[in-house]
Amino acid sequence: MFFASDNAGPAHPLVMQALIDANTGYQPSYGADTIMESVRDRIREVFQAPEAAVYLVATGTAANALLLGTMAQPWQAVFCADLAHVEMDECGAPEFFTGGAKLSLVPTTNGKMSPDALSATIAKHPAGVVHGVQPGPVTITQVTETGTLYTVDEVNALTGIARANGLPVHMDGARFANAIAALNCSPADMTWRAGVDTLSFGGTKNGLLGVEAAVIFDPENAWEFELRRKRGAHLFSKHRYLSAQMLAYLTDDLWLEMARAANAKAGRLEAGLRAAGIEPEFPVQANMIFADIPAEIHARAMAAGAQYHASQTAKGAFAARLVCDWSLPDTELARFIELL
Amino acid sequence: MFFASDNAGPAHPLVMQALIDANTGYQPSYGADTIMESVRDRIREVFQAPEAAVYLVATGTAANALLLGTMAQPWQAVFCADLAHVEMDECGAPEFFTGGAKLSLVPTTNGKMSPDALSATIAKHPAGVVHGVQPGPVTITQVTETGTLYTVDEVNALTGIARANGLPVHMDGARFANAIAALNCSPADMTWRAGVDTLSFGGTKNGLLGVEAAVIFDPENAWEFELRRKRGAHLFSKHRYLSAQMLAYLTDDLWLEMARAANAKAGRLEAGLRAAGIEPEFPVQANMIFADIPAEIHARAMAAGAQYHASQTAKGAFAARLVCDWSLPDTELARFIELL
Amino acid sequence: MFFASDNAGPAHPLVMQALIDANTGYQPSYGADTIMESVRDRIREVFQAPEAAVYLVATGTAANALLLGTMAQPWQAVFCADLAHVEMDECGAPEFFTGGAKLSLVPTTNGKMSPDALSATIAKHPAGVVHGVQPGPVTITQVTETGTLYTVDEVNALTGIARANGLPVHMDGARFANAIAALNCSPADMTWRAGVDTLSFGGTKNGLLGVEAAVIFDPENAWEFELRRKRGAHLFSKHRYLSAQMLAYLTDDLWLEMARAANAKAGRLEAGLRAAGIEPEFPVQANMIFADIPAEIHARAMAAGAQYHASQTAKGAFAARLVCDWSLPDTELARFIELL
Amino acid sequence: MFFASDNAGPAHPLVMQALIDANTGYQPSYGADTIMESVRDRIREVFQAPEAAVYLVATGTAANALLLGTMAQPWQAVFCADLAHVEMDECGAPEFFTGGAKLSLVPTTNGKMSPDALSATIAKHPAGVVHGVQPGPVTITQVTETGTLYTVDEVNALTGIARANGLPVHMDGARFANAIAALNCSPADMTWRAGVDTLSFGGTKNGLLGVEAAVIFDPENAWEFELRRKRGAHLFSKHRYLSAQMLAYLTDDLWLEMARAANAKAGRLEAGLRAAGIEPEFPVQANMIFADIPAEIHARAMAAGAQYHASQTAKGAFAARLVCDWSLPDTELARFIELL
Repeated sequence: MFFASDNAGPAHPLVMQALIDANTGYQPSYGADTIMESVRDRIREVFQAPEAAVYLVATGTAANALLLGTMAQPWQAVFCADLAHVEMDECGAPEFFTGGAKLSLVPTTNGKMSPDALSATIAKHPAGVVHGVQPGPVTITQVTETGTLYTVDEVNALTGIARANGLPVHMDGARFANAIAALNCSPADMTWRAGVDTLSFGGTKNGLLGVEAAVIFDPENAWEFELRRKRGAHLFSKHRYLSAQMLAYLTDDLWLEMARAANAKAGRLEAGLRAAGIEPEFPVQANMIFADIPAEIHARAMAAGAQYHASQTAKGAFAARLVCDWSLPDTELARFIELL
Repeated sequence: MFFASDNAGPAHPLVMQALIDANTGYQPSYGADTIMESVRDRIREVFQAPEAAVYLVATGTAANALLLGTMAQPWQAVFCADLAHVEMDECGAPEFFTGGAKLSLVPTTNGKMSPDALSATIAKHPAGVVHGVQPGPVTITQVTETGTLYTVDEVNALTGIARANGLPVHMDGARFANAIAALNCSPADMTWRAGVDTLSFGGTKNGLLGVEAAVIFDPENAWEFELRRKRGAHLFSKHRYLSAQMLAYLTDDLWLEMARAANAKAGRLEAGLRAAGIEPEFPVQANMIFADIPAEIHARAMAAGAQYHASQTAKGAFAARLVCDWSLPDTELARFIELL
Repeated sequence: MFFASDNAGPAHPLVMQALIDANTGYQPSYGADTIMESVRDRIREVFQAPEAAVYLVATGTAANALLLGTMAQPWQAVFCADLAHVEMDECGAPEFFTGGAKLSLVPTTNGKMSPDALSATIAKHPAGVVHGVQPGPVTITQVTETGTLYTVDEVNALTGIARANGLPVHMDGARFANAIAALNCSPADMTWRAGVDTLSFGGTKNGLLGVEAAVIFDPENAWEFELRRKRGAHLFSKHRYLSAQMLAYLTDDLWLEMARAANAKAGRLEAGLRAAGIEPEFPVQANMIFADIPAEIHARAMAAGAQYHASQTAKGAFAARLVCDWSLPDTELARFIELL
Repeated sequence: MFFASDNAGPAHPLVMQALIDANTGYQPSYGADTIMESVRDRIREVFQAPEAAVYLVATGTAANALLLGTMAQPWQAVFCADLAHVEMDECGAPEFFTGGAKLSLVPTTNGKMSPDALSATIAKHPAGVVHGVQPGPVTITQVTETGTLYTVDEVNALTGIARANGLPVHMDGARFANAIAALNCSPADMTWRAGVDTLSFGGTKNGLLGVEAAVIFDPENAWEFELRRKRGAHLFSKHRYLSAQMLAYLTDDLWLEMARAANAKAGRLEAGLRAAGIEPEFPVQANMIFADIPAEIHARAMAAGAQYHASQTAKGAFAARLVCDWSLPDTELARFIELL
């Protein structure tokens, strides 16, 4: 009954098999491996973006920070949700990789920035006034930190604000697969067709050991990204082991299969919670649920060995985050729902 | 007949097996996995350093740059060999992670710094004069970039100079295993007992997929290292897969077994070269050989499918770097020697 | 009728005379001039802080950014008012000089942070959690950006929160003279006795050409400050011209005399505004007034040649900032009040 | 008898007068003062560069570091003479302002880089290889640190190498006036016509209190420079006092008059030294002389109150640097020559 994180589960057996298969003989290092060629082709195909530059790194923070570093100048503001991973959970990696850019926080509802809120935040940093930092890239988290989703229209509305201000757009897609699985839209529609310039395309939270793709739809700054990746110590010599994971992920839509599984489990969990009279705090749209668990039920769950992050509220309940990963056994899920 | 790099061979089957074994159920993320506890214990045991702080990262550049970042202030000089990896092959990662420290290059003979050369270079940056950068850490590469070794006495002589100047010492041990295997000394004697404060303990070039340990013998600055690692995007969520590799590496001295194999192959290759009248440029002490290959032999080797880095010299020969990794098939090695 | 800024008026004639007097013969450079010795003594005397380290720079941003750089680690948050100069008006200088620290904004009332608001903001960045930036220095602006003042008790309350969290405290005293003149308290009571560790002691906005003192009450990190100042290109070779200004400033309390004059003029201006039915937006406590000027009056003032920053509000009035500097001619002030 | 530095003498009386004249009434701040308009016009006229962007800062290190920051990416090498001020005397300011670029040192003869030496150093950092830093700007110091000069042809030869490698060129002209006075060439010929992109045009060492102009011949990156200047805390609010100095400097060729005076004094000093059998170490071409002073003469000079930097050599003589500034009294000079 493990709901603490989608960072803690195992990798999919097909991914492990791909690693084993890749482990024969010599392969050119630093991304020149033959497997990477297939990864590049496959991602361009998935995103219908034949020109896109594609790179692999091993952590989501690396993908985010390197992309933002390539997009932002040190004297710019990066606009992000007030709850965004880049603000809360990366120990200042964006500031480090951008050379000291300022994260300017956009207030959120249900974890989502509205066009108006984004617009108002950008207006705080007027372009051309030398005394303040200049407006820089907008970063959108999809799935958000509260487990909610932006529809394609909503992404378009945000990128529209960015474009109107001449600002590029990054998408933090650590759970991009869960978003695509839930919205059932095309990756292209969710990204470059909606005005997204670069994407952190996550794998680690969805069944890989540790690989994220940085996708740059307009490859003009790709060489700068390569230099920043190397300088940031994120260029792997034995790169084939990243490539192999990502290729397995994209083969036969394994990435979507795992994301659908995780989302479905969260759906069943939500139903169980509601049946127990527990109302989720945010709309449950992907694989994460936030809810106040009554103290009694919480105690029971803990006693039974359930694991999730929770902190006691003023009213005595436990504000919990429950995350389902692809590997969560159905029996465990059922047992937990029973407990409720 | 692959001699291009020890970065291009496969991982050892026992390492792959350890990955498979680790891939079951949930494990706490970000280094709190149970396997990491064993790694920590095992490294402390190997180095006879029960207090040492031990961290894992996935690239050698990350280990070097994060350790140097923890040791150097932005306004200091880092003293390194003029050929050092940190100077030549990391795209400025040390400058990035230190916040702009200056690499001050120590001239080398056979790739090695002498105490006098180190002393003279330190003297260029007098402490207490505000106009110049201040002297900072010394970094020693063991095995050097030319495949030579510092004896324990030689390390002591260099660290003595550092100590006399009040400077801490880092060791870049990307090929530390090869050094220990060749010198047959204890890891403790080569490091903290010889005045080394921090070590990049390499695994990637010696049979792992991609793991290096950062060992901090005096754990006082360990928390700073942890923050820098996270901020540098080098803290892995699914950390168990790093731990598993490193634990396999240290089990039953697999690390030394592979290093001994690589060194032995290089020894045989050296003999083959000498038999063909080819004199290595530097003493062959670990798993790398630099030599000028006559054009005719080079052509023959290329035609037969041999792979190594080489550039034509003024005299028409080919200045080659030949590296042996643990996995190099003896038949290939024999075939290459035959070719000579 | 110039109310646009206290950055635009002339320097006091005694300051100019001091420059002339200093301009004879040779003087050691880089702060070793004999005048600086007197400055150091005089500032220590004024602040009753015989151990304090004292440095001069030429801009307020330099004083703030260099002090914060010395106090904050790159992976820390700096806590400041949401309207603070360091956040709004320095183009990211604090981020640059700290190596990428994060400014964490404390909500304000009348431009002032309350202890509760500070406490709540610090709580957002829990110490010891590696995923977020760590809590770092608190910076208090005195006079605030809205022209209000913290009493000594209020400063103590804020520093108490900082201390309870183990955080050092900086004071941005670009208008420190105006604060002391208004509160009529001792500089020591307002700073180190109230728990302030470092102070940007402003001169430029109060009758100098361009000099600010950086005062470090505990000199332990003074050498680091010196290195950062040099590295930041803020160490003047012909330093005597900074020293001479500051010495004139501190001689016969010229600094307080000018500040009192500026404050008094603002007091008269406030009375004039109120007489015209215009209510200041914030309590007028030093030399700045914020008020909505009715459109008609605004037009009349502009036509008559008055100068101040203003932007039209939704209701049609003009939200104006009116600043009095020491040199504002009484006749001009009277003429403006007449206009109202 | 002060020969220690051209940083220690007084400002010219006409410069002081200009400050006094500027000190009336209000002036727009941050470079919008009317005096600055004249400065801009005058510098464009002097350099026959009507499009040039012109900015003022207060230290030579600021001009150098901000210009190099605008020209270099963090992952690039900056090519400079091994003795250059940017390498030796700025405490890493170039590294700080570039975000961690690497200074790559070009060996010198008589303090000057040769085209071959520059070419060989650039070749150490091949463009397009991701493992090393990329080649970046070349910076040429004119007058060099040893008091020698590059002819216009020699500058052209160096910029030719830079152009051939696609690299921009900066000139550190802290003593640019002395160079122009000595070579009697046009400022345009020495700079943009010779392929120099940006210039630190010094005033502080030649009779000002503390002002340097940053001249950007192609203004495309001027806005970035402005942001970097502000962020670096080098934008002065009461900017008129910088403008006034620089305008006085350029009026009636005061800058050249002072430089000619300084050079002439050095010429007389050289003659005096040679008459005393002391051979300068480098050709004396501007206002600096390096020479070994016999111990006996050195003792006599010290006893008589002469001031200069010197360190005892292995042979017992004193290796001295003797610098003449514009204000050196002829009587003092004569007295010193007498002493020899």
